[in-house]
Amino acid sequence: MDLATVLGILISFGLIGTALSMGGNPLFFVDSAALLIVLGGTLGAALVHYPLPVALRVLSITRKAFATRLHRIDLVIDQFMEFAHRARREGLLSLEPAVRNLDDPFLRKGLQLTIDGLEPDAIREIMESEIAALETRHSMGVDIFNALASYAPALGLVGTLIGLVQMLRSMNDPSSIGPAMAVALITTFYGVVLANLVFLPLAGKLRHRSKEEVQLMEMQLEGILAIARGENPRIILEKLSCYQPPRERRTN
Amino acid sequence: MDLATVLGILISFGLIGTALSMGGNPLFFVDSAALLIVLGGTLGAALVHYPLPVALRVLSITRKAFATRLHRIDLVIDQFMEFAHRARREGLLSLEPAVRNLDDPFLRKGLQLTIDGLEPDAIREIMESEIAALETRHSMGVDIFNALASYAPALGLVGTLIGLVQMLRSMNDPSSIGPAMAVALITTFYGVVLANLVFLPLAGKLRHRSKEEVQLMEMQLEGILAIARGENPRIILEKLSCYQPPRERRTN
Amino acid sequence: MDLATVLGILISFGLIGTALSMGGNPLFFVDSAALLIVLGGTLGAALVHYPLPVALRVLSITRKAFATRLHRIDLVIDQFMEFAHRARREGLLSLEPAVRNLDDPFLRKGLQLTIDGLEPDAIREIMESEIAALETRHSMGVDIFNALASYAPALGLVGTLIGLVQMLRSMNDPSSIGPAMAVALITTFYGVVLANLVFLPLAGKLRHRSKEEVQLMEMQLEGILAIARGENPRIILEKLSCYQPPRERRTN
Amino acid sequence: MDLATVLGILISFGLIGTALSMGGNPLFFVDSAALLIVLGGTLGAALVHYPLPVALRVLSITRKAFATRLHRIDLVIDQFMEFAHRARREGLLSLEPAVRNLDDPFLRKGLQLTIDGLEPDAIREIMESEIAALETRHSMGVDIFNALASYAPALGLVGTLIGLVQMLRSMNDPSSIGPAMAVALITTFYGVVLANLVFLPLAGKLRHRSKEEVQLMEMQLEGILAIARGENPRIILEKLSCYQPPRERRTN
Amino acid sequence: MDLATVLGILISFGLIGTALSMGGNPLFFVDSAALLIVLGGTLGAALVHYPLPVALRVLSITRKAFATRLHRIDLVIDQFMEFAHRARREGLLSLEPAVRNLDDPFLRKGLQLTIDGLEPDAIREIMESEIAALETRHSMGVDIFNALASYAPALGLVGTLIGLVQMLRSMNDPSSIGPAMAVALITTFYGVVLANLVFLPLAGKLRHRSKEEVQLMEMQLEGILAIARGENPRIILEKLSCYQPPRERRTN
Repeated sequence: MDLATVLGILISFGLIGTALSMGGNPLFFVDSAALLIVLGGTLGAALVHYPLPVALRVLSITRKAFATRLHRIDLVIDQFMEFAHRARREGLLSLEPAVRNLDDPFLRKGLQLTIDGLEPDAIREIMESEIAALETRHSMGVDIFNALASYAPALGLVGTLIGLVQMLRSMNDPSSIGPAMAVALITTFYGVVLANLVFLPLAGKLRHRSKEEVQLMEMQLEGILAIARGENPRIILEKLSCYQPPRERRTN
Repeated sequence: MDLATVLGILISFGLIGTALSMGGNPLFFVDSAALLIVLGGTLGAALVHYPLPVALRVLSITRKAFATRLHRIDLVIDQFMEFAHRARREGLLSLEPAVRNLDDPFLRKGLQLTIDGLEPDAIREIMESEIAALETRHSMGVDIFNALASYAPALGLVGTLIGLVQMLRSMNDPSSIGPAMAVALITTFYGVVLANLVFLPLAGKLRHRSKEEVQLMEMQLEGILAIARGENPRIILEKLSCYQPPRERRTN
Repeated sequence: MDLATVLGILISFGLIGTALSMGGNPLFFVDSAALLIVLGGTLGAALVHYPLPVALRVLSITRKAFATRLHRIDLVIDQFMEFAHRARREGLLSLEPAVRNLDDPFLRKGLQLTIDGLEPDAIREIMESEIAALETRHSMGVDIFNALASYAPALGLVGTLIGLVQMLRSMNDPSSIGPAMAVALITTFYGVVLANLVFLPLAGKLRHRSKEEVQLMEMQLEGILAIARGENPRIILEKLSCYQPPRERRTN
Repeated sequence: MDLATVLGILISFGLIGTALSMGGNPLFFVDSAALLIVLGGTLGAALVHYPLPVALRVLSITRKAFATRLHRIDLVIDQFMEFAHRARREGLLSLEPAVRNLDDPFLRKGLQLTIDGLEPDAIREIMESEIAALETRHSMGVDIFNALASYAPALGLVGTLIGLVQMLRSMNDPSSIGPAMAVALITTFYGVVLANLVFLPLAGKLRHRSKEEVQLMEMQLEGILAIARGENPRIILEKLSCYQPPRERRTN
Repeated sequence: MDLATVLGILISFGLIGTALSMGGNPLFFVDSAALLIVLGGTLGAALVHYPLPVALRVLSITRKAFATRLHRIDLVIDQFMEFAHRARREGLLSLEPAVRNLDDPFLRKGLQLTIDGLEPDAIREIMESEIAALETRHSMGVDIFNALASYAPALGLVGTLIGLVQMLRSMNDPSSIGPAMAVALITTFYGVVLANLVFLPLAGKLRHRSKEEVQLMEMQLEGILAIARGENPRIILEKLSCYQPPRERRTN
């Protein structure tokens, strides 16, 4: 469970809820028709924007923003050092049993190709295709939330314009102008809140998660190639430790 | 028929139509002069922006956003595996009859050049020119819809300014201010709706379709080059499967 | 004469003119002082933004957006096939009389360097410098119109602010507020119209023309290099036909 | 202590404070509920946007914008010239004692790898990974402040919309409209001030600091590689002096 | 003296001054407190954004936008042709006396390194570092003015919000609302004018000057390298003339 995501949503919506109830009746801000226009219209635009299977993936993508992902870079480095030392002492083939039991499919594929004796350049080509394909899949999720974040306030404005026109066309009673305008503004409120407290932050978290994962894979690829080339474990350690913040390193 | 495009348009316009009729007379929002300014002005700007043949292609481009395009990547991979195995066993020339019957002109051209014995680098150069040319043609369509999406709200603002100035210049009767202003706002309403529920989502769908097609071609090129170099079918499979989402793969 | 540019301007300005006269006195929208602020201020900003010789070139650049430019790609390909066949049969020197009579200076320079026996890499380097220099000159024109399009609405806002402040400072007579505000809004109207119906579309057309021309030059360079390398005419045809839309090709 | 950061904040907040007190009661602008919505909502959005450890690093990142960082490029060049001359006269190994006492971990690692006899290309690869990793860590800080700068005015708008809706729904007393609207505008005021006088300038300063540091490291890498290749000290000086503004150089 | 910069500022400010005095008392628009908030606040933000030495360089950078810079490309080409011919006839060393008297430090350094017998690749590396360093220094100036152009309207909005809140909080006398609002709008007016008639155009001019200078240096580098490689003067002329607009060339 990604604590920050949950905490952030609780804080921002809690504060807004408090503000709503402090200044008057909080039910002023509950308007199911307004919510329907903003959410439904945004959804409609997103369905035109994205193919159906991509749009349907939104829910499973959202879940990723709430999932914890802990990459202990130091453990990954430790594992590589072990592989590198064993490969030097006992040959590449000695890695096979350990490789077969690896959980991480990227690492497993890369090391398996190494054990199979592929040239480092061929390994690099294949594994970089893997990284690029993952980046493409991830960027789609970020993209969807950014699109939602741009449609939501626009739909909010559409709702407000509808409300304003209806109010201006039927201004019999001056005392009704205020409440009518308040209702018209609520769609804008929904649009701005959805975009800035939901869609944009989720897009940011997903982009961040993707960057972390890609960086881990680049580090793993660097290690795989170094093992494939039979490099000196000390040099491998120097290379991999670049991916750690300086204060967490054990070299230097 | 691309279901999402149709569904999305039905949902968003259905919701807006409901909102229009719930809050008053929906005919308030029908104003042919306003529609003419926004649509006609946007069209005029687009005609200056793009050469005539490009602008005329808009309709045929739009159709693409409604067309289904299903690339079964697994079937493409199967076909390549078959070609790769046959080329290994019986030589490249044995592919010729099957290649001649291929529907896909890109795949056919690439494999024909391979059978003709061109160097892999020359094949890559020609086929990458093909991909780049297709990307250029596609990006033109995305470009047009993005331009329409930026002109439509601007024309909406122009219409609203015209209405406001006319209203402000002839304010004899205070009771006419409301309706006059309502009319002035309608062009803004049209502009925002056209941009956010029609032009921007269509631009998004076209960009998406283009990305899919380019990715397929890049995968096909990878496969063609691997066959031209006489690579091991197992390595070819590893390369091509990078283009599949992990859970759909049969390797690893 | 570029039909689309003329047509587009007629349509959009015609529609706006009609809207002006339908809703009241069209002379409401004629205000020479407002036009002077917006146009003059935009011009002033552009003069600070660009060196004088560049700013003065605007008029000649604008003319390009109205000029027809028809590149019959198929004719260019035909000519290259003729050159390629003759160079193969009778040697590069046999091209010299035909090359000397070419109208297109880029093609003439490239083929002349080929006949002079320069290495293909040296030809590529020189001709790519030519293309880059042309792109730089073209992009300057696009740049100017984009700058004008960003200054015009800002100057419109400046004019509106001036009008508003003056109105607010001298509100003796409530009945004069409406007309005074109408006058204030006219500069915004001018700014938005100039930006969206004149400057931005012209920038778009110029960018488009530039892309077309650069693409033609890249195709010509590809052909020149292929002739310089003495390549097989069939391969040259495959390379050049990439620049044609598939349905216009005679190969495949 | 970075004087400009402190001075800039004093000037801008001092001026705004003066403006607040000159035109009326400055307490009009103190509204703890408004501040809570804007600051708390922005914080909440940032927590969803960034993983917790990254978000928590904001404070330590901010400190960097207030810290002085003086890179005397001429001193760095002097040190390299000394190393280069000694390496030429007495061999690379003679640098070891001096290198071990260096404060700068980047320089120490690079020169140590040189003394260890690594190939220049391997040194370049490792050290460029270091620079890229540092750039990634720095860009995260810039990113956070840019995100805060985009959330703050949006939250300000959310607060203003809440205030407006509440005011419009309970307009019994016309004389209360003014003060209620004033309160509603205060969140927008907070959002705009936070974004433009705090978050955006801090993002700018951090980006600037990062650029300076990266440039220094690129210069150091250039020097390390030149020493590793045993280049002529005069050429090394020519290379390093490119990083100095012309008027500070001692060559030419 | 750059005529366009002076002329542009005279035109735009002259027109605005005229507009101010035509519609009422021009002193309405003189408000030293408002100017202080906008200018001072913008300055404060810029001081936080940039290190002090960079911020202080603004004045000397501004001067560049008013300075004439005339690069007669044809004269540069003539000089290179002379050098190229002499180097061919009498050897590289014969250039030394002429090179020592060159005013342009970039050209002098490049040719001196050539005479010293450095490899063309080493010369290219050093001189490209010089160009990159100059571009970095120049881009800083453009950057500062763009930052000022984004802070000025934001500070204008801050000032207007302050004025509005103060007005709304003390609405005893309806007749004072107009003038108070006029005063509030003046900071926005200052911000928009400063951004669009001063900061943005100056940023544009500086970017343009930088591009011109970089292009000249790239042409000089091309010429230096050609001389270092002892190329045929005719080929050198073909290469350098790419940097001239076609109608100014003497070749072809």
